[in-house]
Amino acid sequence: MKAVRLHSYGAHPTLDDVPEPEILGPWDVLVDVGAAGLCRTDLHIIEGQWDPIQHPHLPYTLGHENAGWVRACGSAVHNVAVGDTVIMHPLTSCGLCPACREGQDSHCENATFPGINVDGGMAEVLRTNARAVVKLDPALQPRDVAALADAGLTAYHAVRKAAPVLFPGSHAVVIGSGGLGHIGVQSLAAITSAEITVVDRSEAALELAGQIGAHHTVLATSDADVEKAVAEITGGGAHIVFDFVGERGAELLAPKLLRNRGSHYVIGYGGTVSLPTIEIISREINVIGNLVGTYTDLVELMTLTSQGKVTLHTAVYPLDAANDAIADLESGRLVGRGILVPDHAA
Amino acid sequence: MKAVRLHSYGAHPTLDDVPEPEILGPWDVLVDVGAAGLCRTDLHIIEGQWDPIQHPHLPYTLGHENAGWVRACGSAVHNVAVGDTVIMHPLTSCGLCPACREGQDSHCENATFPGINVDGGMAEVLRTNARAVVKLDPALQPRDVAALADAGLTAYHAVRKAAPVLFPGSHAVVIGSGGLGHIGVQSLAAITSAEITVVDRSEAALELAGQIGAHHTVLATSDADVEKAVAEITGGGAHIVFDFVGERGAELLAPKLLRNRGSHYVIGYGGTVSLPTIEIISREINVIGNLVGTYTDLVELMTLTSQGKVTLHTAVYPLDAANDAIADLESGRLVGRGILVPDHAA
Amino acid sequence: MKAVRLHSYGAHPTLDDVPEPEILGPWDVLVDVGAAGLCRTDLHIIEGQWDPIQHPHLPYTLGHENAGWVRACGSAVHNVAVGDTVIMHPLTSCGLCPACREGQDSHCENATFPGINVDGGMAEVLRTNARAVVKLDPALQPRDVAALADAGLTAYHAVRKAAPVLFPGSHAVVIGSGGLGHIGVQSLAAITSAEITVVDRSEAALELAGQIGAHHTVLATSDADVEKAVAEITGGGAHIVFDFVGERGAELLAPKLLRNRGSHYVIGYGGTVSLPTIEIISREINVIGNLVGTYTDLVELMTLTSQGKVTLHTAVYPLDAANDAIADLESGRLVGRGILVPDHAA
Amino acid sequence: MKAVRLHSYGAHPTLDDVPEPEILGPWDVLVDVGAAGLCRTDLHIIEGQWDPIQHPHLPYTLGHENAGWVRACGSAVHNVAVGDTVIMHPLTSCGLCPACREGQDSHCENATFPGINVDGGMAEVLRTNARAVVKLDPALQPRDVAALADAGLTAYHAVRKAAPVLFPGSHAVVIGSGGLGHIGVQSLAAITSAEITVVDRSEAALELAGQIGAHHTVLATSDADVEKAVAEITGGGAHIVFDFVGERGAELLAPKLLRNRGSHYVIGYGGTVSLPTIEIISREINVIGNLVGTYTDLVELMTLTSQGKVTLHTAVYPLDAANDAIADLESGRLVGRGILVPDHAA
Repeated sequence: MKAVRLHSYGAHPTLDDVPEPEILGPWDVLVDVGAAGLCRTDLHIIEGQWDPIQHPHLPYTLGHENAGWVRACGSAVHNVAVGDTVIMHPLTSCGLCPACREGQDSHCENATFPGINVDGGMAEVLRTNARAVVKLDPALQPRDVAALADAGLTAYHAVRKAAPVLFPGSHAVVIGSGGLGHIGVQSLAAITSAEITVVDRSEAALELAGQIGAHHTVLATSDADVEKAVAEITGGGAHIVFDFVGERGAELLAPKLLRNRGSHYVIGYGGTVSLPTIEIISREINVIGNLVGTYTDLVELMTLTSQGKVTLHTAVYPLDAANDAIADLESGRLVGRGILVPDHAA
Repeated sequence: MKAVRLHSYGAHPTLDDVPEPEILGPWDVLVDVGAAGLCRTDLHIIEGQWDPIQHPHLPYTLGHENAGWVRACGSAVHNVAVGDTVIMHPLTSCGLCPACREGQDSHCENATFPGINVDGGMAEVLRTNARAVVKLDPALQPRDVAALADAGLTAYHAVRKAAPVLFPGSHAVVIGSGGLGHIGVQSLAAITSAEITVVDRSEAALELAGQIGAHHTVLATSDADVEKAVAEITGGGAHIVFDFVGERGAELLAPKLLRNRGSHYVIGYGGTVSLPTIEIISREINVIGNLVGTYTDLVELMTLTSQGKVTLHTAVYPLDAANDAIADLESGRLVGRGILVPDHAA
Repeated sequence: MKAVRLHSYGAHPTLDDVPEPEILGPWDVLVDVGAAGLCRTDLHIIEGQWDPIQHPHLPYTLGHENAGWVRACGSAVHNVAVGDTVIMHPLTSCGLCPACREGQDSHCENATFPGINVDGGMAEVLRTNARAVVKLDPALQPRDVAALADAGLTAYHAVRKAAPVLFPGSHAVVIGSGGLGHIGVQSLAAITSAEITVVDRSEAALELAGQIGAHHTVLATSDADVEKAVAEITGGGAHIVFDFVGERGAELLAPKLLRNRGSHYVIGYGGTVSLPTIEIISREINVIGNLVGTYTDLVELMTLTSQGKVTLHTAVYPLDAANDAIADLESGRLVGRGILVPDHAA
Repeated sequence: MKAVRLHSYGAHPTLDDVPEPEILGPWDVLVDVGAAGLCRTDLHIIEGQWDPIQHPHLPYTLGHENAGWVRACGSAVHNVAVGDTVIMHPLTSCGLCPACREGQDSHCENATFPGINVDGGMAEVLRTNARAVVKLDPALQPRDVAALADAGLTAYHAVRKAAPVLFPGSHAVVIGSGGLGHIGVQSLAAITSAEITVVDRSEAALELAGQIGAHHTVLATSDADVEKAVAEITGGGAHIVFDFVGERGAELLAPKLLRNRGSHYVIGYGGTVSLPTIEIISREINVIGNLVGTYTDLVELMTLTSQGKVTLHTAVYPLDAANDAIADLESGRLVGRGILVPDHAA
């Protein structure tokens, strides 16, 4: 089958012909890939940034945001059947470790992460496992949802964790309404009753934000202006700031936008949070980490998607054109989320 | 009456003869002071560190950890009566602002903070209000509990917030088992079922910690040694690290002692938390601020005290000897918490 | 001033000329009544059903759902000023008892309940206290919100308590979409992402429910039909059933509509819940009581109202026509909530 | 191998010679039984009471509280190894259904329940699965813990659910301190800081309760006396009543022992809860169902056991003497929990 494989860091991946994966264990599921999302993490992988953390064996197949149709099941699989439309939770969790027993799939001690540390979904067939597959409404198309498997899930997870304090009269501020952020805005509008303010450097992003649920938008000119605008809109600061940027100053601005007892949700990364302890305690504020999401989060996000409450803007490429998509992403020409589709699903 | 008053920053307070406070509003309560705690915050006040934050009008009376007996009540007060033994929540909250309506007294928008921004309890009589007084079991002596009003309350508040994740098999690590920390250890032992590990630079502090509830103690030699010891004891890191130091490196060590999904509770202050966002998200860890405590926290802490589950080591001085106590605290000669007692309560 | 007063149980109240109430305590607030809701509880009061529970001294003024404008404030009141538009929490809570300290105003040990056990708001002027008044957006009209003070608050409180389990994919079933229930449906739509199913005997009520947020409606013919319909819609039962009826069989039907681990929220009353313990444990289901709401609940509900997310259908009567309104309510001629408006607010 | 098998309802089980179970699926685990608890549920099974609920195929092997040592593992099992000491969660859950994904093992849609609906542990070898086995400290003996697998787990689960409201100053009342109840009392003392009051008809049970953590005991003479005693001890009613009886009047007494906002935790069964809705709402009280416990609950309970905080009184019988044990249990001669031990573990 065809697969987009990375042979060495710094070089573009190539479209190879490789053997199809097979069922190896009783828990395995093979999926005819319908769509694989392409995201900035793929660029970082190609650059080699993830090698020291995940150390995959090269060459391997990229693609960590995958959806498709079940092709074959291991002997112990009973939650999906051949032909089912499925989206894949990014981790193949074990179901046995303490994290799994509490539903915290992202912290499974025995998981693989297809597309990150083993072969992923930029191919015709993907091997995953029974605990990763979410059965979808057959009306959903893999190409319309694939990019929700990781980016969307991460945004939803953060919003879902914060939801218990986002009731009428509360203020949620979103920094960065791009690929993840605009899913965050839609999720906030769908599952909370908070007033939503979006901060971004792009007027186009703010315009979109206003259409998908933001009640207020703030153009990020200077930090001082943003602080002032947010303080006025929120009447003294946000209950939650969702920082989808996490670098280039956003991670330092975020805590300044909080009211007492507020929380800075870190989702984007790259920078360093630096907070004097006197400020942390005198305002009793928090910094909250967020990593991917749980399987149940993904089920809920798919429910929102089938209800039409969360949608993605996508740019579809044939699998063969993976390097065109990568080039477009690198150059900023790619608008919306890039989606690779194998011939059989075109 | 006699009162220990600060006339100018940098100079020792003096024992003055001043008029007794009077009932001014319907909500006011006058208290015959039984004991006033002396703590490191008083030294910082004398140095002028709190002036820019709380800007009290000098001269004023120190003393923010107070207990005693009700002397007189305003017309609207019905929760205490003359003669009742009481301890004072450090803030005189309003009961009307949003924070008060949710029981978050420390964030009251209209509070005074006796001993910090208005006259405090290092005097024969203190003016406070009905929402600050906690009625005590008459068997409790003001001198035995006064220092719990602020330092103890702060330690208890942090433990109480963390309690929902501290069940059997969980690990709590305490950094710094001094004035606040040793109340934290007793609180952990009393209200959680976590395994408790205490890290301190003082062998004496560790010995005491072992007697009041710590299951493991680690002498803080090098950060690397502490990290290794804690990782072994906890089987991969703490669920919660209570940082009662917050400076001199503790604030940087604390996150290293956490397992995935763990939380660094900041209680002490002075330093700056500095955490790469990649670490915050990849481990999904949190930094949690803690400020004083709620009125209900203080009620619970007093219940533990009357049950004998939380006790304080104290060194009692007559009110007249306030400057001796201050000198002993400055020089490190003061063992336990310093308590000032007016003649009428001696 | 004019006031609608009850002189003896079983007889209609009369429109009397009585002295205006005065400020008696520092915490008191006088309100020029803008509107007072009339509800079925008033009929029960007139019949004498509440006498053994609340034992008011007759004669007294009815009206427990009140809104208006501040006329005068006691010496200690600082949260509202003369002229402010306000709605009244039904209880004048004390701010000092344990329930108040936790924000559980409805369980205040020292409250009065105007219109139930002391003079209420079917008059030109009402005496309440500082902890009962919620300052409103001046754009809101008392007549449009008064009936939310008790009935609406009760419905919102139940929904708000259940909200932590009502996320995408969950099912909320509402039994009885009348005066309280239709506020419940709007609240569910505004603050949760549950799928909402409404069960009612009235086709008109179901039609309205569909317009204000219900995704599914079920005409309550036989219990067996309702059970079957709800089981199908919810895929095995509701996560939460809100029982706004609580009598005439609804209280026995509700638990049958639950899935495992579901909860029966009791809001309406009159009947008796009867559940074999084997059923309670084998399905691990719960029965949850709901009483009025907290002050913070009322603030949130007013936020929804000013956002246009919760609206009431009302029928306005002059205060002088109170007995006409009562007669219309008794006879079933009153459509929507009856609202009494004094001449000065007409 | 030897196995205690039920051939027909109403007749005593017999000790049969049957083939050993084998590994059938990749997830299976075979266990050399070290001990199997005997409990009242076994008597009900023999009488046929559970037939309509669980409809097992007769004959089958009894024993639903099991502990032992791993004998063999299916191909996909990696969480235990041959020789490990293990206790079995009573259900063999699937890890794939919605309940499993949230850690709610007791509500697994695909579980078997060994000893209840398939062959259980009153035998030399038991077949269970990877998700049921909890690896134990090798210092723990199967015979000392087996009865915690179901009865103990059920008691712990209820206490664990209630723990978030059981802090200093709160009151927990336990009705019935027998087999389950005395684990409940020990669990309350270990993981909460509530004041514990035990109500029982047996003076011996109360004496034991006082030794294992109860602060107050009340001999259950008349309901009126119990109500009065509990009201005095708790200052107005319990925050939580744990009803380990659930029949013979306990289920009707329990709600009367609650304070406002309190909860009646139903654990025992047999009777019918009957509560007027007016009482449920006017006091805002709750009835909470409890079913077995989660896998994580069992892990926590085993932690408490290895810390010596929860212990069981047992009466050990050889497996061959199963019918003697049953006769002793039926006649009331069996003191403590009956434990059956195969020869190889004797």
